[in-house]
Amino acid sequence: MKERILTGDRITGKLNFGHYVGSLKNRVELQTQYETYLLLADVQALTTHFEQPDLIQENLRQVALDYLSAGIDPDQATIFIQSLIPEIAELTIYFSMFVTVNSLRHNPTIKAEATERGYQEMYYGFLGYPVSQAADITFCKATLVPVGEDQVPHIEQTRKIVRRFNQLYKPVLVEPKPLVGDVPRLVGLDGNHKMSKSLGNAIYLDSTPEEVREKIKKATTDPARIHKTDIGHPEICPVYAYHQVFRKEGSDEIYESCKKGQIGCVECKRSISQSINDLLEPMRERRSLYKNDPKKVDEMLMSGTAKARQVAKETMQEIREAMSMNYF
Amino acid sequence: MKERILTGDRITGKLNFGHYVGSLKNRVELQTQYETYLLLADVQALTTHFEQPDLIQENLRQVALDYLSAGIDPDQATIFIQSLIPEIAELTIYFSMFVTVNSLRHNPTIKAEATERGYQEMYYGFLGYPVSQAADITFCKATLVPVGEDQVPHIEQTRKIVRRFNQLYKPVLVEPKPLVGDVPRLVGLDGNHKMSKSLGNAIYLDSTPEEVREKIKKATTDPARIHKTDIGHPEICPVYAYHQVFRKEGSDEIYESCKKGQIGCVECKRSISQSINDLLEPMRERRSLYKNDPKKVDEMLMSGTAKARQVAKETMQEIREAMSMNYF
Ligand code: SF4
Ligand code: SF4
Repeated sequence: MKERILTGDRITGKLNFGHYVGSLKNRVELQTQYETYLLLADVQALTTHFEQPDLIQENLRQVALDYLSAGIDPDQATIFIQSLIPEIAELTIYFSMFVTVNSLRHNPTIKAEATERGYQEMYYGFLGYPVSQAADITFCKATLVPVGEDQVPHIEQTRKIVRRFNQLYKPVLVEPKPLVGDVPRLVGLDGNHKMSKSLGNAIYLDSTPEEVREKIKKATTDPARIHKTDIGHPEICPVYAYHQVFRKEGSDEIYESCKKGQIGCVECKRSISQSINDLLEPMRERRSLYKNDPKKVDEMLMSGTAKARQVAKETMQEIREAMSMNYF
Repeated sequence: MKERILTGDRITGKLNFGHYVGSLKNRVELQTQYETYLLLADVQALTTHFEQPDLIQENLRQVALDYLSAGIDPDQATIFIQSLIPEIAELTIYFSMFVTVNSLRHNPTIKAEATERGYQEMYYGFLGYPVSQAADITFCKATLVPVGEDQVPHIEQTRKIVRRFNQLYKPVLVEPKPLVGDVPRLVGLDGNHKMSKSLGNAIYLDSTPEEVREKIKKATTDPARIHKTDIGHPEICPVYAYHQVFRKEGSDEIYESCKKGQIGCVECKRSISQSINDLLEPMRERRSLYKNDPKKVDEMLMSGTAKARQVAKETMQEIREAMSMNYF
């Protein structure tokens, strides 16, 4: 029997190459080896975007399309919508009874994100994010959660909650393990260390060939290079970073040519645009298949959600029994 | 059309005369005038009793019997079980997105109860009590919540949440009003200002005549009275307090007789035991009817819960629509 993975994204916008390189690519590879539960986290998106629910509505199917076009196979992976699994809300409420406010306040992710977003005041739901994350992971009894090395501590809060639940009531929940893998960060078009919508420095997975070329054309390069013959510093150039990530081979040659002033930025950019478009080509084909058949996407979402719901109901029954709250 | 009331109890034990005098009696009177939703709050019981779920299991039907025997008419009032309405959990999660941690920390009830219980650490679920209370009230769009004068501020947090929701999304929720009434406190058998299980000073609604007599016999009285002829101080005697509450008439005579040393405590107690047993007699009859037909109680609980669930589903549909989270 395959081990079960839980992973997913908060629905705050369509996915870009940062998401692809950082997690989606990995998920496509993992789906054959593990039973994959892929969460469209619309409820958790509200922790930071409760004032923009339309953003979620607009992007939910878009993210599903991003998954499918990137190669997630709905026959292998279960893609489902968080808000349609009320058992996740119920579990969150049950877990919240025995998690202290202080343990949440000291959660490093919560602290870091609150600082990053400049929150003067903490919202109750935002503070409870680790509790609802534990509900996501445990409702489907995922045994593995793919994370980067630095995210291992996040899983610890879920593990603690599981241990506490099992000890308080009955051992019905599974303690998940982190499935540690590389989570490469992709530099933004402006050289920022992260590609993100809010920074306006992202290339999206639904880009047309023209859009890719245009964005790359405007990408930051080594400012020391004005003429083709100027000595370059590819190590500080996002375009070179893309060569490293998206070319199958030849990035060393780019490095050398740039260093020696033997390649112009225009040519270098044209070349990487081509690589990115090559990578996107099969994605575009899959996307257009699904885009032309929106009913199929909806059916896929509904059937994935129904499958997850069934699992959730079964877990909830065990939970109620363990807590002596199965009355009839 | 009748206005709708939401009221109920956390399931932490069977009900005593403090509950009866403080709220249940009033609910029995209100049920003809208002459409009454009566919540068996098993989930909220966990905010303080998550380590004792068996207590909830044991007492859920007991409290339902207390309601029925006290005169709650299941054909008029909808008695339902909180944990079987997952929409309450969902609403709690949605509301929690826009309620700040500080507003909860400063909630006077939360502060007072944390102090009373000597909590060193605040649990996340305990802190969120006012949010889940807002979900209780709003899922069924109750317009009125029966409270005592001092509890009016509690309803304000719900009203704030409703206003915020309606302003953020769409005006689908109803701002409830407090239905202010007397909430008399009943002194305990030991003279403590409150009758409660933990103080061991309560008379329960399921008491036999003998139990009532025994408990009253052991009740604290004016310590200055040793002989019948000793001058008494009924104003400090819990037995006199019971005369005031439970006798239709004649408590003034008791007052005078005690003051003048014309009545012995034994006789005085016998008399109030009789009054309490008179009050309990019709309750006992109703209780035995239901107790002999546990299936009927279960059916009543199931049908009340099903009715509440239906209302919850309808509200949730509106909520999802208002939040643009109705995907299919
Ligand atoms: S040649 Fe390429 S790697 Fe070098 S600075 Fe220009 S764009 Fe960057
Ligand atoms: S006579 Fe009655 S009211 Fe007076 S002290 Fe005795 S029990 Fe209390």
